[in-house]
Amino acid sequence: MSVLTLKSYVADEWVDGGPNEIAIASAVTGETAARAGTGALDFAAMVRHAREVGGPALRAMTFHERAAMLKGLAKAIMDRKEALYALNPETGATRKDGWIDIEGGAGTLFSYASKGKRELPDDRVLIDGEPERISREGTFMGLHVFTPLQGFALHVNAFNFPVWGMLEKLGPTLLAGVPAIVKPATATAYLAEAAFRILIETGLLPKGAVQLVIGPTGDLFDRLTGQDVVSFTGSASTAQKLRAHPRVIAESARFIAEQDSLNASVLGPDAEPGSPEFDLFIKEVVREMTVKAGQKCTAIRRAFVPEKYLKEAEKALAESLARIKVGDPALEEARMGALVSHAQREDVRDKVRALAREADIVFGDLEKVEIIGERAQKGAFISPILLRCDDPWTAKAVHVVEAFGPVSTLMPYRDLEDAAALANRGEGSLVASLFTHDPKIAREFVLAAGAYHGRLAIIDRDSAKESTGHGSPLPVLVHGGPGRAGGGEEMGGARGVKHYMQRTALQGSPAILTGVANSWIKGAPVDAAPPHPFRLKFGALEIGKTIETKPREITLDDIEHFAHFTGDTFYAHMDEEAARANPFFPGRVAHGYLILSFAAGLFVDPAPGPVLANYGLDNLRFLAPVSPGDSIKVRLTAKSKKKRNDDYGEVRWDVEVANQKGETVATYELLTMNAV
Amino acid sequence: MSVLTLKSYVADEWVDGGPNEIAIASAVTGETAARAGTGALDFAAMVRHAREVGGPALRAMTFHERAAMLKGLAKAIMDRKEALYALNPETGATRKDGWIDIEGGAGTLFSYASKGKRELPDDRVLIDGEPERISREGTFMGLHVFTPLQGFALHVNAFNFPVWGMLEKLGPTLLAGVPAIVKPATATAYLAEAAFRILIETGLLPKGAVQLVIGPTGDLFDRLTGQDVVSFTGSASTAQKLRAHPRVIAESARFIAEQDSLNASVLGPDAEPGSPEFDLFIKEVVREMTVKAGQKCTAIRRAFVPEKYLKEAEKALAESLARIKVGDPALEEARMGALVSHAQREDVRDKVRALAREADIVFGDLEKVEIIGERAQKGAFISPILLRCDDPWTAKAVHVVEAFGPVSTLMPYRDLEDAAALANRGEGSLVASLFTHDPKIAREFVLAAGAYHGRLAIIDRDSAKESTGHGSPLPVLVHGGPGRAGGGEEMGGARGVKHYMQRTALQGSPAILTGVANSWIKGAPVDAAPPHPFRLKFGALEIGKTIETKPREITLDDIEHFAHFTGDTFYAHMDEEAARANPFFPGRVAHGYLILSFAAGLFVDPAPGPVLANYGLDNLRFLAPVSPGDSIKVRLTAKSKKKRNDDYGEVRWDVEVANQKGETVATYELLTMNAV
Repeated sequence: MSVLTLKSYVADEWVDGGPNEIAIASAVTGETAARAGTGALDFAAMVRHAREVGGPALRAMTFHERAAMLKGLAKAIMDRKEALYALNPETGATRKDGWIDIEGGAGTLFSYASKGKRELPDDRVLIDGEPERISREGTFMGLHVFTPLQGFALHVNAFNFPVWGMLEKLGPTLLAGVPAIVKPATATAYLAEAAFRILIETGLLPKGAVQLVIGPTGDLFDRLTGQDVVSFTGSASTAQKLRAHPRVIAESARFIAEQDSLNASVLGPDAEPGSPEFDLFIKEVVREMTVKAGQKCTAIRRAFVPEKYLKEAEKALAESLARIKVGDPALEEARMGALVSHAQREDVRDKVRALAREADIVFGDLEKVEIIGERAQKGAFISPILLRCDDPWTAKAVHVVEAFGPVSTLMPYRDLEDAAALANRGEGSLVASLFTHDPKIAREFVLAAGAYHGRLAIIDRDSAKESTGHGSPLPVLVHGGPGRAGGGEEMGGARGVKHYMQRTALQGSPAILTGVANSWIKGAPVDAAPPHPFRLKFGALEIGKTIETKPREITLDDIEHFAHFTGDTFYAHMDEEAARANPFFPGRVAHGYLILSFAAGLFVDPAPGPVLANYGLDNLRFLAPVSPGDSIKVRLTAKSKKKRNDDYGEVRWDVEVANQKGETVATYELLTMNAV
Repeated sequence: MSVLTLKSYVADEWVDGGPNEIAIASAVTGETAARAGTGALDFAAMVRHAREVGGPALRAMTFHERAAMLKGLAKAIMDRKEALYALNPETGATRKDGWIDIEGGAGTLFSYASKGKRELPDDRVLIDGEPERISREGTFMGLHVFTPLQGFALHVNAFNFPVWGMLEKLGPTLLAGVPAIVKPATATAYLAEAAFRILIETGLLPKGAVQLVIGPTGDLFDRLTGQDVVSFTGSASTAQKLRAHPRVIAESARFIAEQDSLNASVLGPDAEPGSPEFDLFIKEVVREMTVKAGQKCTAIRRAFVPEKYLKEAEKALAESLARIKVGDPALEEARMGALVSHAQREDVRDKVRALAREADIVFGDLEKVEIIGERAQKGAFISPILLRCDDPWTAKAVHVVEAFGPVSTLMPYRDLEDAAALANRGEGSLVASLFTHDPKIAREFVLAAGAYHGRLAIIDRDSAKESTGHGSPLPVLVHGGPGRAGGGEEMGGARGVKHYMQRTALQGSPAILTGVANSWIKGAPVDAAPPHPFRLKFGALEIGKTIETKPREITLDDIEHFAHFTGDTFYAHMDEEAARANPFFPGRVAHGYLILSFAAGLFVDPAPGPVLANYGLDNLRFLAPVSPGDSIKVRLTAKSKKKRNDDYGEVRWDVEVANQKGETVATYELLTMNAV
């Protein structure tokens, strides 16, 4: 590989950072793989460009437009992934490790594209929750909405997943409508820069949407305001320094931290040796120790087993670890690659020595490892190291000192309560796992340990085949944890988008809130003039368009007839005396489904037209009984719209069924698919 | 009033803080109203008691049990409110001001009791969102849950609302299952202590659930961990100091800040003099300036009007302010009371002098005010002060210097975009208001300004009568704002409860997740053995209890018959050719409501029994068309349960309707009310 020269991307231009004072070594050969300059970039211009160009451009787009953009970015990464795989081994990663990084990164963008399309509106305002009735008559209502922050997101990424780490932050940020300034970790910046370049070359991103900082961040932090978000992934010590930055404190700038933590895995008390869960646990601990050479913020650092199974577990782990081949990650036979750098290896050795004061090394040698591959003999390789600590109750380092490499400590526990308490001694983690086949054990563990862990993977024989494992954050699930894990959250589907938006409680009349949110709220004006709303195409149909039907009586004959036709002869419809004894009914009443069916008969417009299908119904509540002789009428109002593709769009209708006294007997939301 | 001696409440005992070195003056007379000691409390014991006694006791309760407790606390405050009103004037507050504090505080607890009962489960785990399918076959699923943090909440409260400020934090904290240590502001601690004593004397709170610190907090902050939450209300400068506390930083302790901010009110461009919105704006600015003598974190500090209406607005405000009588808040005729202390008055005067460098005082005199009430002549009274700043674009202090008293600055704006930009120059606020009758103006303002404000009250002629106004945070709406407002959120209904809980992403098989969350997830085992699930009382019915019905054919006659009976003769059911032209249907299909009705006919158990009523239906989706000749069958499974009272409970059923090929044609959740 020739030596790469890395550039930053500032205000839509690739710029270098002056003389190449940074040399980045290949993890495998130790030779220089890339160079970068340390000259200060024009951070004032970057921040101004993000705020004044990127932000307005992204905010002018709807969620659906941003989602389509993300899909295009994800496709581009997949189309050009081999260029990224070509650089990947130099970071110490095998192709399998790289798959998590590269295709996992693209997958995260695809997931955000899909969530954006399916769960977010084709609008620039995101409604949060239901309207709140904050007045007796309903003329003053509350509604929460999210709008994009008007600053920028500063992404400070870790070295271990240069592609995924960048994309898992860009996905929710861009979907929220917020521009980003990306600062990759220097040790693997060449891979991050290559992926970033692919994004730029799609031409899909508006000007100013993303910028890249290779090298030092200069006075960038001094420019933060309360409209900006720092999203940091890396070590706890760096996180603390940045979190306490005077500007972060003074401006209440948002600070999301995802810090390495001492994640635990617990073999359930029911998972005796020979059980599927025992075998799954052994496999998972070994996998987590060796994938990415253990350089994962989610890796299992502490493995807890019932004390009576300690010996068997140690033996099984050691046997399995002995089969791991270490060496040049470009070679197919290498199961584990290198640490990212020699400096990192020294740090791991130091930390293991600290752990070894409380624990015994029972597998591996800090100084010795057989390395496969000729060019790799001087690389930053290390043997997997398993420690055993027999007294985890008094030991301290094993719970809080992290060796960021293929290192784990095996420990005994007494009972489930004890296992949870020991897992919690990590003082907060990104993830813990539990291997049990017993839902009761799972519940007890979640109640005892949930507060300390951002994710709990509970794995058993039923889920093992499809399990994504202890160590994999997923775009649809929250990633982050309390305490030592940084107290932050990332991803989690639409939850992650909201980290880059401001939630605002709106108060106003139904008409005002309907206008702001493009969603009809009860009490807002309706347009009940002809034509029938079902005669209007998706585009022509306006929020508030309404039909109010004529009334229809429901007779005892209707109820009898419906009962025998459908087979629903529930006593409340059939037996006057028994119905009267029911606390909710004055006597025989109409079936709920009869009310729904007659309501449809009242509002439906039979001839072919723009409404193609009734595809569902939400939030149906029957509010008052309908007795024989009562009559019902319907108000059906277009509530909100969501275009699905060039042919159809979804329309949500607010429906209210009232009786002859004007009392509401049923409310629901009807969903139809309408031609564009 | 005799001089009160205040005590702290430590580990379920009232203790004094040694010699009474703190003297708290009455705002009205300037004489000592209360005394307290400054001796250090045993903070180690307090923290241990909260963690080891209060936390476990609260966590053992369900949300419904905690909600019932809050209701009892709220009732006790209301029952004994006159004792609080008796102390209230000494803080400088009128009875009307005290109503916000005392009855507003009780109302907030009532609201949390109600939200807890209606929106949270009768369980100790709170499910967040829908299950996520993270595997192809569905054997490995994701689900987010909230569990209570295992530390304590440290509430640092402001002087202005000693009762409400305490209760609005205690409501969500206790409902979450987290113990609290309350630190009221010293200036009005006597009123907070009196309200706290009422809570204790109910006997409803478990040991260790709440503790009270009168006087200095000593080394309390040094004891924080990542399981603890600091919730602070007060000045930005104190917030910054506490937020940067080394322990908050190192432990990622949660820090919620609600800081005073320079809240804006905007007269809409459509609201010309003479319009209802113009008059409402004038009234609201005056009200916000004078309620609580302007000592409200939400008060209007900046009033923006279209430049052409500046003179009329100034005249109207001055006329209205001239009618405000200032004096002893114990007297009925006093419209405005005193500032909390002479020190506070000096601070307000200093800040007004700073503002006056950029603006002119157009109403009021810093040094002179007519005071009604004999005993009040030496109190901390001040005149309302209106300033006018003609150049808000170059002025700085008017946007960021807060005089925490009856002080506001009137400013012109050019157009709506300009108004939003000026409102945003406060760099983040708790609330802004807009007086407009035009939903389009409202939407444009929300898009331009939403990101800078935690709440936007949009007031017009339609909502004015029922409006709670610019300055009132409500328990069901989020309170807090970005940037200068502290970047925090409080309340907002169930949202506020989650601030004291940890969200954890669970992964596991459907059986495991069902067991953890007490909510059946598709793919988990079912119990389809007799009896029919409708024969089981609420208590005996277990999650997963199922009925699988026999099939029933749907004939063309059925469809014809249903169409004519209900009146729903939509062409997709009636006209083969037209139906075929529809992109979703292969030809004539059964009505969705026919499928629902026949499904009910299949699963219903007609005789009287524990199921009392079908009261609703959620998330119905029709997934495949049903053609004449197809047959359908139903699986109905108990998904979750929620006891409503001693007689009934709600049961949510997961329903799947399949055709003869085993394809799912419809899914929904059915709601029934079951006898206990």
